Amino acid sequence: MAVPGFMGRILRVDLTRGSCTASELPVEWKSLFLGGRGLGVGIVSSLLDPRTDALAPGNILVMAAGPLTGSGMPLGARYSVVSRSPLSGTLASSNSGGFFGPMLKQAGFDAVVIQGRAPRPSVLWIHDGTAEIRDAGASWGMTTSGAMAGIREEIASPKARVACIGPAGERLSRMAAIVNDLGRAAGRGGLGAVMGSKGLKAVAAEGNLGREPADPEEFLKVREEMRSLVDRSGISKGALHRFGTANLVRVINEAHLFPTRNYRESHFSEADQISGEKLAETILDRVVGCHSCAIACGREVRVGDETIHGPEYETIWAFGADCGVSSLEAIARANHLCNELGLDTVSTGATIACAMELSERRLIPERIRFGDREAVVDLVRKIGHREGIGDAMAEGSYRFALRHGHPEFSISVKGQEIPGYDPRGLMGQGLEYATSVRGACHVYGNMVYPEVFGIPVRLDPFTREGKAEWTKRMQDQAAAIDSLGICMFSFRIFSPALYARMAAAATALPVTEESLLLAGERCWNLQKIFNLRAGIGKADDTLPPRLLQEPVTSGPARGRVWQRQPLLDEYYAARGWDGGGQPTRDTLARLGITPVMVQGGAIPVGDG
Amino acid sequence: MAVPGFMGRILRVDLTRGSCTASELPVEWKSLFLGGRGLGVGIVSSLLDPRTDALAPGNILVMAAGPLTGSGMPLGARYSVVSRSPLSGTLASSNSGGFFGPMLKQAGFDAVVIQGRAPRPSVLWIHDGTAEIRDAGASWGMTTSGAMAGIREEIASPKARVACIGPAGERLSRMAAIVNDLGRAAGRGGLGAVMGSKGLKAVAAEGNLGREPADPEEFLKVREEMRSLVDRSGISKGALHRFGTANLVRVINEAHLFPTRNYRESHFSEADQISGEKLAETILDRVVGCHSCAIACGREVRVGDETIHGPEYETIWAFGADCGVSSLEAIARANHLCNELGLDTVSTGATIACAMELSERRLIPERIRFGDREAVVDLVRKIGHREGIGDAMAEGSYRFALRHGHPEFSISVKGQEIPGYDPRGLMGQGLEYATSVRGACHVYGNMVYPEVFGIPVRLDPFTREGKAEWTKRMQDQAAAIDSLGICMFSFRIFSPALYARMAAAATALPVTEESLLLAGERCWNLQKIFNLRAGIGKADDTLPPRLLQEPVTSGPARGRVWQRQPLLDEYYAARGWDGGGQPTRDTLARLGITPVMVQGGAIPVGDG
Repeated sequence: MAVPGFMGRILRVDLTRGSCTASELPVEWKSLFLGGRGLGVGIVSSLLDPRTDALAPGNILVMAAGPLTGSGMPLGARYSVVSRSPLSGTLASSNSGGFFGPMLKQAGFDAVVIQGRAPRPSVLWIHDGTAEIRDAGASWGMTTSGAMAGIREEIASPKARVACIGPAGERLSRMAAIVNDLGRAAGRGGLGAVMGSKGLKAVAAEGNLGREPADPEEFLKVREEMRSLVDRSGISKGALHRFGTANLVRVINEAHLFPTRNYRESHFSEADQISGEKLAETILDRVVGCHSCAIACGREVRVGDETIHGPEYETIWAFGADCGVSSLEAIARANHLCNELGLDTVSTGATIACAMELSERRLIPERIRFGDREAVVDLVRKIGHREGIGDAMAEGSYRFALRHGHPEFSISVKGQEIPGYDPRGLMGQGLEYATSVRGACHVYGNMVYPEVFGIPVRLDPFTREGKAEWTKRMQDQAAAIDSLGICMFSFRIFSPALYARMAAAATALPVTEESLLLAGERCWNLQKIFNLRAGIGKADDTLPPRLLQEPVTSGPARGRVWQRQPLLDEYYAARGWDGGGQPTRDTLARLGITPVMVQGGAIPVGDG
Repeated sequence: MAVPGFMGRILRVDLTRGSCTASELPVEWKSLFLGGRGLGVGIVSSLLDPRTDALAPGNILVMAAGPLTGSGMPLGARYSVVSRSPLSGTLASSNSGGFFGPMLKQAGFDAVVIQGRAPRPSVLWIHDGTAEIRDAGASWGMTTSGAMAGIREEIASPKARVACIGPAGERLSRMAAIVNDLGRAAGRGGLGAVMGSKGLKAVAAEGNLGREPADPEEFLKVREEMRSLVDRSGISKGALHRFGTANLVRVINEAHLFPTRNYRESHFSEADQISGEKLAETILDRVVGCHSCAIACGREVRVGDETIHGPEYETIWAFGADCGVSSLEAIARANHLCNELGLDTVSTGATIACAMELSERRLIPERIRFGDREAVVDLVRKIGHREGIGDAMAEGSYRFALRHGHPEFSISVKGQEIPGYDPRGLMGQGLEYATSVRGACHVYGNMVYPEVFGIPVRLDPFTREGKAEWTKRMQDQAAAIDSLGICMFSFRIFSPALYARMAAAATALPVTEESLLLAGERCWNLQKIFNLRAGIGKADDTLPPRLLQEPVTSGPARGRVWQRQPLLDEYYAARGWDGGGQPTRDTLARLGITPVMVQGGAIPVGDG
């Protein structure tokens, strides 16, 4: 079934009370927030007191698909999870592909709003427009693949799609992911721990509900146009298809922007051993794709006797270069463990790298050496089960390093680990990390594209020219794409104007390029306002000391550090925020952000 | 086994990780905090960030006995639970008698410190110096009596004593109690919801470990002296023994200080129908006492075919006069349901009274009439299971009334419901309610004793003379008594000097009357500092508008309201706090409160 547009219904689940209630999706929410990430942000912003502890029953977790999720549009397969993050304290979203998002809509709902805490471990089962809370039974305690199989059997629905947590989420690791369709995960921000704190093992969905697009003729026309753009771009036969996201390993390493051994160096001499090309030559079994995707950047690999989901670029970087490990097999095993235990690979790998540096400096008693491939795999297991040193590491690198008196060795922003592009040689990417409203992140803007690949424009990575404006634009655009329910790679092929035409055809909303970017900007500002009210402000819009003080030691960026000022002020100005990073009254008015959209109504307003 | 003094060991339980670790009770904690409430406050103050949501896994719950708990000293049977309260947000303690506290010590520990959140419903089983976390099995979901029986059977220890939560705690009601020995409860502040949020159904304890007093000769001498004081006081044959705490119903009603119909009136014309005397004439089956108590103020009553635990004064007031109900049977049934569902009777009754007023004013759609005895019993059940209107009411009267736009009809301080002594005719009792560090409370100071009974001195209830100083003294004394592990009624018989001798004989600590009161004051100030850091300050040290603006309509106090100023300033001065209610540097120095005692170290310090 194709489901273009909105299903028009929201499911509200109160786990404390054990109730499920369906209600209509208000029409004004559709145009204000679109769906997916935007809708989740709108709901959490209006309902949640920002002082609520992320792991308290009062926190709210929203799972939301967008109007183009499952529509049949190329690359339209994403759903978003939105909640207060236990890792960063921000109002965060995290999204995932695969087949769960489209199935959630086919089961009848655009969004599920989950509050409270189940008195015993539970599973939410949504099917054909109805929902029930069931006992989690033996699935609680299981790894994600076991739980998915068990839950499908228990609900007697082999076609159901399941998003679930593993032991890491049950044990409240602040790096816990929500995994669906085996290797797909809403990974960043520890939102799996929010599910764990609510006693919710999984959400299972199934249904056969379909939707006609609002304007079928225009919809098919735009879809045809999109398909031919996909073909002409060559993306479905290019490097992303052939080598997966790991096609970037060589490129980024050759630019000396491949952070190595906890960001001490920017070039990994053994990078060729862990590249996408090497993966294709050695352990690759087959390529796999999400719903409606012709790129198929996913990998399945053979390790030992097993066929397992293969690692992405970020995962290869985190367990590889950042830990000084050059074994693709070890990385694939660590990745597989993260999928099974329900852990974010970026944060987990970077936390192990941080522990390696603390160990080398004799700041922790344990001996964990950079390059020790077996230690990496073993530590992932310990983190997932919170065994031994894994208990403290499960809190993430920032809390782990802080516990040992040295937070400066956590390479993170707002407590969330920085991914694998060295911002000392990428002024715009650094600005994106520093200002990202969910903590350090490479998919809330992707400045590496203009700075390295010249997409959609070429920007000099070492200067600040154009960085404030483009960072803002890329951030707003990413928020809009996440709200529509599409894969971020699509922006390499489609223009915002084309997205807008597709959304208009699917929904009958008067979506234009301008209104689309404005919805993204509205979403960004609502997340920012939540963070300000939670006490996360200008002082947190920065990078860790290493990236401000220790210059790159080799390559074209040699001698450079990331320069916070005047970049940050220029960015605030581009956003219409005051010098303290607070949206001004004019900006709020331009975005139509009103007190009713902010729980309690008190919006911090900047001067100027 | 008698257990005078300290067992010398603390048990730390991390439910997230599933670990139990025993450690020594540091010697300086013994003199700084004594034990019980003081020890719990010291532990929570030093470990917990005051911004942690009370229902988040990060909150800490301490159960602690005192050095005189189970010592064989008359009335030495209390243990305290200390945590951040989900009802008031304060650092709160709540204590309970019966046999659980003495047994916790016999099992080997002065205190149990519980953190994290169990991945599945659990029971903590402490026996003979060891501890383990067990699956709660079928006990989760059960009422308290069923759970206690089931857990005893499961652990195969019929002599074990169990402190547990009922369905209300599992469902996170902010009025949830922790019940032990059937009718005994650590009721106030919703600490049962903290256990529920941690997935902890119960703590079971058993052991045969004993302790000799440090100075056996002196100990026996003081005990003899105490016993003869108990005899001479006649308390074990007097009104408290004969009519239970409900002996106060007539006295307080005749003084027109018996709040009626949600505090609108101060005299209940049908009070004789619900008095302790009437109870003794009608439904009383037998009197029951705690460990080492000759008073036996507890009741068992016959209602229908059942023998159930009988209601206390506060319970009779809350379900009776405050709801306009004059049926002892209905009150006893409501009380029994509270014990079984695990609810605080004061808050539950007062929340029903608040709903009755909202209904009468047509501020809620439901029709709930004052005086409807069946409605009271039915609402207790609904609150415990969070059914229908009971779901919102389970949050307590303040949040319930606020939800309907009229917080002024919640008769509470800091969100905790005020008990049954009208402060408009009791200036000192009002001051105690307004300033109590756990929210409105009658056992964090008992100013009703000097103001009504002339114990230990007679104070004119209508004036402010001596009130600031006596409120401070009674509050500090109560904190010391709670820290030693003794019943508060003991202060009617024993002097602080005698407590001090007993504590010194049991522990070998150099306890004097002065050091005892200082320990109480230290405890009080640590709770205050936590509250200030949690944002609870001077504006919250007040009574609800009704008690400041609507005069008493009958009796000796007719025409009076509670006068906040200059009483509050005098009290702050008596405490050595500045005009904003912050302890001054001198006060902190006098009490030996150092940054290490306060999590993070930042103590708010007042000027002056």
